[in-house]
Amino acid sequence: MRLSAPVVLPCDERCTVLRDAVVDVDAAGRIGHVGPANTAPATSGPLLALTGILLPGLINTHAHTAMTGLRGLGGDLPLMRWLTEVIWPAEVHLDAEDVRAGMLVGTLEMLGAGITTSVEMYFHNDAVVDAVLAAGSRAVVTPGIIAVPGWDRLGSWERMLEGISRWIDTEGIRFGPGERIELGYGPHAAYTLPPEALAAASAAARQRGALLHLHVAETLGEDTAIRQAYGSVPLLLEHLGVLGEGARVLAAHAVQLSDADITVLARHRAGVAHCPGSNSKLASGIARLRDLLLAGIAVGLGTDGPASHDDLDLWEDIRLAARLARLTAGDAAALTAAQVLLLATRGGAAAIGRDDLGTLRPGGWADLVHIGADAPAFAAGLDVPDGQLLANLVWAAGARAVRDVWVAGERVLQGGAPTRVDAAQAHAALRSRFSRITSQ
Amino acid sequence: MRLSAPVVLPCDERCTVLRDAVVDVDAAGRIGHVGPANTAPATSGPLLALTGILLPGLINTHAHTAMTGLRGLGGDLPLMRWLTEVIWPAEVHLDAEDVRAGMLVGTLEMLGAGITTSVEMYFHNDAVVDAVLAAGSRAVVTPGIIAVPGWDRLGSWERMLEGISRWIDTEGIRFGPGERIELGYGPHAAYTLPPEALAAASAAARQRGALLHLHVAETLGEDTAIRQAYGSVPLLLEHLGVLGEGARVLAAHAVQLSDADITVLARHRAGVAHCPGSNSKLASGIARLRDLLLAGIAVGLGTDGPASHDDLDLWEDIRLAARLARLTAGDAAALTAAQVLLLATRGGAAAIGRDDLGTLRPGGWADLVHIGADAPAFAAGLDVPDGQLLANLVWAAGARAVRDVWVAGERVLQGGAPTRVDAAQAHAALRSRFSRITSQ
Repeated sequence: MRLSAPVVLPCDERCTVLRDAVVDVDAAGRIGHVGPANTAPATSGPLLALTGILLPGLINTHAHTAMTGLRGLGGDLPLMRWLTEVIWPAEVHLDAEDVRAGMLVGTLEMLGAGITTSVEMYFHNDAVVDAVLAAGSRAVVTPGIIAVPGWDRLGSWERMLEGISRWIDTEGIRFGPGERIELGYGPHAAYTLPPEALAAASAAARQRGALLHLHVAETLGEDTAIRQAYGSVPLLLEHLGVLGEGARVLAAHAVQLSDADITVLARHRAGVAHCPGSNSKLASGIARLRDLLLAGIAVGLGTDGPASHDDLDLWEDIRLAARLARLTAGDAAALTAAQVLLLATRGGAAAIGRDDLGTLRPGGWADLVHIGADAPAFAAGLDVPDGQLLANLVWAAGARAVRDVWVAGERVLQGGAPTRVDAAQAHAALRSRFSRITSQ
Repeated sequence: MRLSAPVVLPCDERCTVLRDAVVDVDAAGRIGHVGPANTAPATSGPLLALTGILLPGLINTHAHTAMTGLRGLGGDLPLMRWLTEVIWPAEVHLDAEDVRAGMLVGTLEMLGAGITTSVEMYFHNDAVVDAVLAAGSRAVVTPGIIAVPGWDRLGSWERMLEGISRWIDTEGIRFGPGERIELGYGPHAAYTLPPEALAAASAAARQRGALLHLHVAETLGEDTAIRQAYGSVPLLLEHLGVLGEGARVLAAHAVQLSDADITVLARHRAGVAHCPGSNSKLASGIARLRDLLLAGIAVGLGTDGPASHDDLDLWEDIRLAARLARLTAGDAAALTAAQVLLLATRGGAAAIGRDDLGTLRPGGWADLVHIGADAPAFAAGLDVPDGQLLANLVWAAGARAVRDVWVAGERVLQGGAPTRVDAAQAHAALRSRFSRITSQ
């Protein structure tokens, strides 16, 4: 299949803008040729002529998407009270079917916003996988590991950890059509697990080449004891050998970092999931995005769960990343439209250690988003200078302008509607399941 | 006509949530009864049963909407360079037809986002009015008055001022079907006009009961000379008698304010148009929203022009107002969903001195927005507790969920599409006119 479009953004390092270009997709759902139409090789396959902008699917590097049914609960509380007084007590009641229903609704919402990969940390992970595959999306599923009162109903952290390892050893680290699912480890945070649990999860992940996905320094107060004992969570992780050669570590939030913390994360090539929407809504703070990037750290963007963000619109985080970095620096040129767009695509792929996602290149997965040219954002047309076009895409188009989405070459959103699942039915299913929980 | 909906938000002072309620609209386009369906008076008129949330149309208190054709130009520059090097040179080429085309596209975009009133400062104001009336929206049109090199093509500030006064004296301060247009004065700023121009505009406005709409303290560097001579722009305005008894003053941006400035604005009952989207994108700073509200100042929200925001989605500003206030205060409860929703409705009306807009009450204009319940934001249903419902509306629904809009009782948006104007044609007209400008 060949897709053609007046604008193709491969999201390469320079954020090249290709005009009148094509993207070839092979039968396995991988990308073949990408480039201007007039120099493309001849093809006899089907041709789909698009009228807008074609770019890689966005990567949501930190999510608890199944929480859609809890959206808006306790929305005006700070993180710790919100977690311990509202969210955790509600989550006690969630069974696998609830998680499946919530994950399906959230996955459809993400596809509608052009997100084709999300990094998920939750429980009842069979149900998470099931929903992702049902919608035809892609996810890195890192089942949560946690040891706090109330969560022992799911067993000890050792048992959670063993469950993940067994799963990977049975299914393989990637599986499903188009390798839509990757498995990883989700030790929740240093403040919710003993150090030995972090070390054990790290060892298990490293042995299997799996992603280790954990919350790091989201708020100032959460890890006081660790700061006193080790200086900081990144220093603890270094001390435990969690970071370093052969490890794929994704630090979510990473808000409250010292210069030394940034140096440690950079030295060990840890990735960061920057979550400006969640961090601003919960008043957790402003992550040091420019310093992270200057240190050479791979940074992606994350929505966090829909109970704290509250939508799953990564475009808002794209803009927030620029807004907050610009305010912090007092400089309107601190982050350009091109730079923040790359955070949500190739930056996210780099942060999770995937070179087959986030950039349109031969051999990578054909996870694609088509942005409609009929959006008001493009009323002046697509035939404007590159900088203006990128500004219009990032600052004015956003999720509303997403028309079509492909994952592994399969169109899973067409004209704004999911192709595999009826959204209204998915909403109704969620509603019928969650009414017993939110009314308590 | 009677509209019924499962949820009606009058946007009264307490942000009451009415369940299963009705809004009556009379033949003149004004609101009659508002309240629960089971206590509503009998009616024999037509009934329209809506399935989502009905609330007042949003008020965009600071806009230069006609700039849609310049959207994204020079988007990574700070305010002063962006204005003087990119925008003003481009605006030299705009004629009345360009302004009409840009205003029409922007007005349709605003209606699509549920904005029914905008406060406009621009030039070629006949064209601005024409476009607002063509789309069926509502605006407070405050023609710009400015005295900087390059703008003298439009004549002296005295001539601009006289033009507005003559217009008001001819047409009346409000005119058009459903009084859709209100005229006011738009002296650009203290840094672009001599003090005597501010004083003269103020006198003319006060004499006619008109709104005086000007930029105040948007950036730190813009008014250095005024700060040295008078302490600040608000102090200058007080000194000139611009503020005070009988004056309707709307200070746009109001970012760089001292405690004394806030006291002055509060004492003289000036309104503020808070523009967090523009101020963050341009790194102008974070306005002291909580302090303004604590001082009792009427604060509305503004998108600013689409060349700096860059979209016309006031819902993003609603969320940004909360995000930035929470980050500044380090408190996730600093501004609630209800509080920021009220800023965009009744707060905006108060800031521009209109009690017939922004709140659903008998006698006010029937400017209404219907938010669809089928949005992912409401997957858990509308039948959730009030706080959760407001959180879902503010944090997750937004512009994408706007389905229908009425202005003065006339449906001007139906199922997301404008009823009076074809959006694609309006975009095409803009494109054909602006291609000569953006390609220069």
